[in-house]
Order: sequence, then structure tokens, then C-alpha cells
Amino acid sequence: MVLGEKLLMKLLILSRLMERNEWHIKELIRETGISSERLNKLLRELSKNYLMTYDESSIVWNPADIPSTLKPWGWRLYHYPVLGSTQDAARGHGPWSIVIAEYLIEAKGRHGRSWKANLGGIWATISLQVPSEWAPLLPIAASVIVAKTLNSLYKINAKIKWPNDIVVNGSKIAGILVEAEAFPNSFIAYIGIGINVNNNPGVEGAIALKDLVGLKPRNQLLASLIGRFSRMGKIVDEKEKLIKTYKEYLDTLGRKVIVETHSGVIEGIAEDLRDDGSIVIASEGRELVFDPITVLRLRYKD
Amino acid sequence: MVLGEKLLMKLLILSRLMERNEWHIKELIRETGISSERLNKLLRELSKNYLMTYDESSIVWNPADIPSTLKPWGWRLYHYPVLGSTQDAARGHGPWSIVIAEYLIEAKGRHGRSWKANLGGIWATISLQVPSEWAPLLPIAASVIVAKTLNSLYKINAKIKWPNDIVVNGSKIAGILVEAEAFPNSFIAYIGIGINVNNNPGVEGAIALKDLVGLKPRNQLLASLIGRFSRMGKIVDEKEKLIKTYKEYLDTLGRKVIVETHSGVIEGIAEDLRDDGSIVIASEGRELVFDPITVLRLRYKD
Repeated sequence: MVLGEKLLMKLLILSRLMERNEWHIKELIRETGISSERLNKLLRELSKNYLMTYDESSIVWNPADIPSTLKPWGWRLYHYPVLGSTQDAARGHGPWSIVIAEYLIEAKGRHGRSWKANLGGIWATISLQVPSEWAPLLPIAASVIVAKTLNSLYKINAKIKWPNDIVVNGSKIAGILVEAEAFPNSFIAYIGIGINVNNNPGVEGAIALKDLVGLKPRNQLLASLIGRFSRMGKIVDEKEKLIKTYKEYLDTLGRKVIVETHSGVIEGIAEDLRDDGSIVIASEGRELVFDPITVLRLRYKD
Repeated sequence: MVLGEKLLMKLLILSRLMERNEWHIKELIRETGISSERLNKLLRELSKNYLMTYDESSIVWNPADIPSTLKPWGWRLYHYPVLGSTQDAARGHGPWSIVIAEYLIEAKGRHGRSWKANLGGIWATISLQVPSEWAPLLPIAASVIVAKTLNSLYKINAKIKWPNDIVVNGSKIAGILVEAEAFPNSFIAYIGIGINVNNNPGVEGAIALKDLVGLKPRNQLLASLIGRFSRMGKIVDEKEKLIKTYKEYLDTLGRKVIVETHSGVIEGIAEDLRDDGSIVIASEGRELVFDPITVLRLRYKD
């Protein structure tokens, strides 16, 4: 419960800083009811996960690190201190919206797995209304967009771990979850993106951008991602190119892998990728084809 | 951490309900990102601590249970979903203000002790600027006000346990903490009042009003308390009457008690109350006088 208390205080401070990015410390004490010594300690910790500067009298949160200051053309952006999950919140906001929260109480991963969405990362759901035939390509396109954006901005050699984790040297830096709601001729896709940016991932096998290149203002990354998602039509129209790029980023082919499904665990070599996004595993002389839906977890053996 | 998550979700829901007391469930899902099954469970729990009614499509929080709907004449009232402590927040709001929060992360008790300020209670700091000579009478007056208000509204036979706990049949229903800031001719008193109203105290030896008379709208109690605090001048001017009333409410005289101080623990009979609020304890043939400042804790032996 001590951890819970500290988190609650940090969220309280963030809520105030989202109303206004500059505060006198005295005012912030008044509006949070946190004593000055305690506040000082909390600001020291927060400034390790956010671009914030403070002294004895005031605190400033760099607007380039505050998602709500972004006004992406053609999108509605909603920024919350805390949400259950951005996927659930996005359902009510309609297509072409971006829902972002600083902390998720029940972050959703693939196959209903939970994962940590803590302070300083990017936890967002981007919703778009797209033609039905785009559906199978969206997880692939989203993975490519995230990997490409990270590499072009920060030169960190991000790769894709099948089906759509983004890894750097084998450590997970971002995850993607695509959900959809179908309508007669189109559907609304809810693309959940979690990126360890300035947060402390605190999970084994995960790494944050700040561990590689130091604290970065998140809006640069967000704006670049949103720009690429705005051009989704062009990306999926060039299907062959997209799959070729996905394969180039793929870190999984040629590796010994352990594949977990509902019906058991299989070891083998990841040999090839089919155009529909399925992976071909060579195991004991057989070739097995798995699509992302049936695979609960894929791990590298080496 | 499971408890922490649930609390965070409840605070998120309360924050939204403080913006507006009526919501469609769909909108509330959108603005909290909490899934509908989960939300339903949380609303069921919240309605045990708040006057809320909900069905499949909407939720209404009774305005008579929402402190911010009170507009007490001559006072500024600030209502927060969560604060560190109302005492720390009140320091920045100046005199004649009332600071209320639904949950306190670090509630302050006497002698720096912490205590639970959880959902459904009244956790408030009332600040008033008063002449210096009122100082010693404020803890006494505040205790009388709280006990009197509870009894006149709910007929629960609330008593005062020396120095300023409010008890019903020996169980604590309310606590008072008086702090002050001195100025040349006057001082600002910060009177912290915690009352177990519709919350689950969850602490041994504590009881809530709802355990005695069922859920009650908190504003009736708050308005009555504030009315009495507005007449503080009259109350302390009639000093003899005040002390007489305090003594009438006092549950402690004649009892076997255990008194803890920094210099040790003493057992004896609580014999008398001095006009300055000190208590006289008969112990092994001696008469010992304790003032509230030196007593860390007083317990009843029987």
C-alpha cells in the first residue's frame, strides 16, 4: 500500500499539471494537500520520468512532453491523467480519435494479458474507420509504423518480434494491440500502442527509450506516429511493400523459438512468414503454420 | 495492490461524478476507460458508501450527498476527490474556508498519527481567523459542536472521549485535530474534522453513522456543522457554559484509564477536568494533571 499511496500522490500532482503546466509550489501544496517536504521528494521522482524542472518556488512541465498540447490535424486527442484502459475509453470517442492516459489501471495486452502502463510512457489508443479489407493488414502496418518511427527519430535499431512486439536487442520497448468493431462496409479499428519512453518498465525483458537515449519529449514521437497513421491508406494500398518492410524489421525468422498455444507448447525454428501474417515453424521435420490469434506467446530460445 | 487498483478506479468514477452528478453509463465508460462489467461492480460498491442510484443506462449521485453543492454563506468551500491531507491544503486557502476531500492519502491525526479517511466519510478542514485568546477553547468547542450536531440530527448519544474524540458506546465515530498559525493579534485555526458517516471505518474500535442509522446525505450534517462553526464567537464568549457542556458530554470522568505520555504509561481513575482542558488522574494515592499536548493516547480500561 505504500507504493499505492505514492502513485496516488503522483497522479494527483500530474492532474494539476495537466490543468496548467506551471505552478508555484505554494499553490500546488494548496491544490494537492501534499506537504512541502513530501511534494519535493515526489517532484524529484517525477522529473526522472517527465521533462519537468522545479526549484523551491515553482515547477514547470515542458509542454513538448504534454500530449494535450498536440493538435493533430484531422484527429481529436483526449489526454487523461488516469484511465482503466485507453481501449475501453476509445470505444466512446468514435473514429479518428486518440486517447492517451498517463497511467492505466488495467492495461490490456494481447489475449487479455495485463501489463504495466506506468508514469512516463506513451499509452494510447488510436481509432480509425477503415474499409473492411484493411483489417488483416493493420497489426502489420501498426508494427511497421512504430518500429520505423522509433528508428528514424532515435536510431535505436528497433525490430519487430512476431507478431507485433517492438524490441531493441531482444528487449521489449513497445507493444501493439489491435481490436475492431465491424460495420456493414467498414470497421472501426482501435489500435492500442504502448511505448516505454521515459517510464521505468520494471518488467523483466523490457527496456525504455530513456535507457537508450535519455529522457525525450514525448510529443515529437507522438506527432510522428500520428502523421504516419494519417497516411494509413497509402501504407496498406502498397501491400507488397508493407509486407516486405515488415519482414525486413522482423527479428524472429531463423531463430529457435518456443510457441505457446492453447493446445500446447512447440519448439522449432521460425522459418518463414506468410503474406497473411502467419509464421511458419519447422519442428521435428514438420512445417507448422501459426497465425497470431492462436499463439498465446512466442519466446526466443537463444 | 488489488485494493489499490480498486480504490483508484473508484476515485476516477467519483472525479467524474463531481464534475456532473448524472451520467449515462456509456459516457462514464468513455470518460473512465473502465469496462462495463467492472464499472457495474464498482457502482454497486460505491452505492454502499454514497447516496447513488444506478441502473443499466445511467447513474445519479444525490446532490444532498455532494459537498460542493453546499454554498454556505460567508465561507468558501473547496471539494476535491482526493488530497494528501485537508490540513495541508487548507493552509493555502486562507481563513473562512472549508476544504473537503473524498479520500485523504495521508490523513493527519493528533501527534502525527495517521488514520484512515476512506470513501463515504466527511474529511474536512475548517479554517477561521479568531482572536488569540480563543485558542485554548477551540478544541473544546469543536468537540462540543461535533457531538451536539450528531446528537441533534441523529439521536445517537454521541459522547466526548477526552480530549477530543467523539464516541458512541465507546466506539470512535469522529476525531478532531486543531492546528493554528499565529499572527500579531489573531491567529488562523485549522480545525480538522473526520467523521465516519457512510464509510466503512475498517479500524478496530471505530463505528460509522451508517452502522447506527443507515446511509445519510452528508450535506445535512455538514450544513449543520458549518452553521455552528459560524457562531463560534458566541460559543467561546460563554466560556463557563461551554466548559459545562463539554463536561456533560465527557465520557471519561470516573473511568479507569491508561494514559500514555512520552515519559511513560500511567493507570488511574479520571477524576476531574480543569477549566483549561487538563484532566486530573488519581493514581496510587497521587493526583496527576495532564494536558492534551502531553498525552499521546488515553485508553479506557473497562
